[in-house]
Amino acid sequence: MQRSFEDLTTLFNEYLHQYSIGEEPKGLYEPAQYILDLGGKRLRPILVLAACELYGTAAEEALPAALAVEVFHNFSLVHDDIMDKAPMRRGKSTVHEKWNLNTAILSGDAMLVEAYRLLCEAPQALIPELLYSFSAMARQLCEGQQLDMEFEERTQVSTSEYLEMIEGKTSVLIGCGLQLGGIIGGGKEDALNHLYTFGLELGLAFQIMDDWLDCFGDSKLTGKQTGGDILTGKHTLLHILAKENKDFEVKLSDALSLTNPEQRVQSVKDIFIQSGAAEACKAKAQQLYQSSLAHLDKAIPKGVNSDPLKQFAYSLVERNF
Amino acid sequence: MQRSFEDLTTLFNEYLHQYSIGEEPKGLYEPAQYILDLGGKRLRPILVLAACELYGTAAEEALPAALAVEVFHNFSLVHDDIMDKAPMRRGKSTVHEKWNLNTAILSGDAMLVEAYRLLCEAPQALIPELLYSFSAMARQLCEGQQLDMEFEERTQVSTSEYLEMIEGKTSVLIGCGLQLGGIIGGGKEDALNHLYTFGLELGLAFQIMDDWLDCFGDSKLTGKQTGGDILTGKHTLLHILAKENKDFEVKLSDALSLTNPEQRVQSVKDIFIQSGAAEACKAKAQQLYQSSLAHLDKAIPKGVNSDPLKQFAYSLVERNF
Repeated sequence: MQRSFEDLTTLFNEYLHQYSIGEEPKGLYEPAQYILDLGGKRLRPILVLAACELYGTAAEEALPAALAVEVFHNFSLVHDDIMDKAPMRRGKSTVHEKWNLNTAILSGDAMLVEAYRLLCEAPQALIPELLYSFSAMARQLCEGQQLDMEFEERTQVSTSEYLEMIEGKTSVLIGCGLQLGGIIGGGKEDALNHLYTFGLELGLAFQIMDDWLDCFGDSKLTGKQTGGDILTGKHTLLHILAKENKDFEVKLSDALSLTNPEQRVQSVKDIFIQSGAAEACKAKAQQLYQSSLAHLDKAIPKGVNSDPLKQFAYSLVERNF
Repeated sequence: MQRSFEDLTTLFNEYLHQYSIGEEPKGLYEPAQYILDLGGKRLRPILVLAACELYGTAAEEALPAALAVEVFHNFSLVHDDIMDKAPMRRGKSTVHEKWNLNTAILSGDAMLVEAYRLLCEAPQALIPELLYSFSAMARQLCEGQQLDMEFEERTQVSTSEYLEMIEGKTSVLIGCGLQLGGIIGGGKEDALNHLYTFGLELGLAFQIMDDWLDCFGDSKLTGKQTGGDILTGKHTLLHILAKENKDFEVKLSDALSLTNPEQRVQSVKDIFIQSGAAEACKAKAQQLYQSSLAHLDKAIPKGVNSDPLKQFAYSLVERNF
């Protein structure tokens, strides 16, 4: 049995709806429940369920692990929002804004612990493997967040450093989610390694396109003002590749120092195009996307339909929103 | 084989000495290694090892779990120090003071993750049980810290609320440490439940005596100025019991509002004695201590020497430092 992403989304949302992270003390659990209830597309837990069904096991078996991934993701949002001083998340106040710093730290800690506790509800014999995969992922995610913060203080970041950072911040959780689902589904080690790499490369392609869309996306579709990353001076792949082109290094520096924000965004965008960075960025995303699909093919048992996962991958990378 | 606490301390310290929490990024792992290297008596991990040997298994089997407990304890110190705005810990700067807030949050997160990762190094078949015990403990610890913060804002705290708070903040980690060691040692469920309760009650007795010593201890032996809790207006058991005595409620309130700190400490101490709170507090600690020893007796297999654990319990509760 292999259900569609739509059916798996319904299954997960019903499970989530019946779940409560805790009651007392309210000051600890209300903020955690608040961030969980803010919504989002629930992509990561759905991937856990889809991976489980790839290997012929009903997704219900993987529901606690899927929830562990979602709770963990939300833990990371709460703590990252503190570190990034972000006031808003999904159109609502962040936890540290709505409550305070201490609440955001401690509720986040409780969410991280709860994610691990949920792993206890997986089939007993698989728990050691799940714990190992989950802990390796969580460690890399902390490392990615650390690199992201360090890059803000630096004037130079290399392509490989940037890729290492987004791998930690975005990709490992996608790869790990697929891996957890695959372990519970009963996939063989070799297949699961390919499934993990599919998630890793897809996550990289997604993040690179996300940065590209921040700059070149249609603001009507993305719902964000284009050029946000340019205005904050973020080291995106576009920025790194343009800077590496010696013919444009000075021009880029000049454009980034323009005082008028609209002029700055437009000039930097022009340089991203003229320097070839925009094309190179899309090409890198495409290469990673194609490579990820090759790994997906090797991860899937004969006779199993990989179309839903392929459509999902397509929608992540080829989107224009 | 049952080694002395001294031998187990040497064993653990050698293991810790060879351990590194991580190398790169330095900004993430150096603060974590710093707090681990600050020292301390390592009581919690030693208890894990001692519990393992109680049931006839060499403590070496329990070394990763013991380290998990120590790393977790240090995670909680790093995050608690942020929340308490504490500048110093063991005579050195706290992580958020020496580095900054973001570093303390993220390095703490990485330590919590690392504690769970270390559980993966325990004997495979026992991992589900260890994960369950550890997660239940970590959840209660977050709840205890939340209550502690909430009590600071309140004018009234009951004895049972206070005991619930210190159970979370102090006792569950001692109980859990013993339980983890006992699981690895091969103890039966009934024995392990008694061992856990031994740790829980001993932790409560320890914390109550810690508060008592803050007020009545010999400052030459404790190394702390006596009356620190009185000056910060903390809801200790002494304070709660004195306030519950209607004959002293107003006197206590008056004494706590004295502007001269030395006069305030002396007057409040006098009220703690006259109201019977000081004696009641010691009696509560004694009762918990005696009850804990009864549980220890039921936790220990016939023919096994419980003297080292009893001496340890004695040293925690009957100390005057």
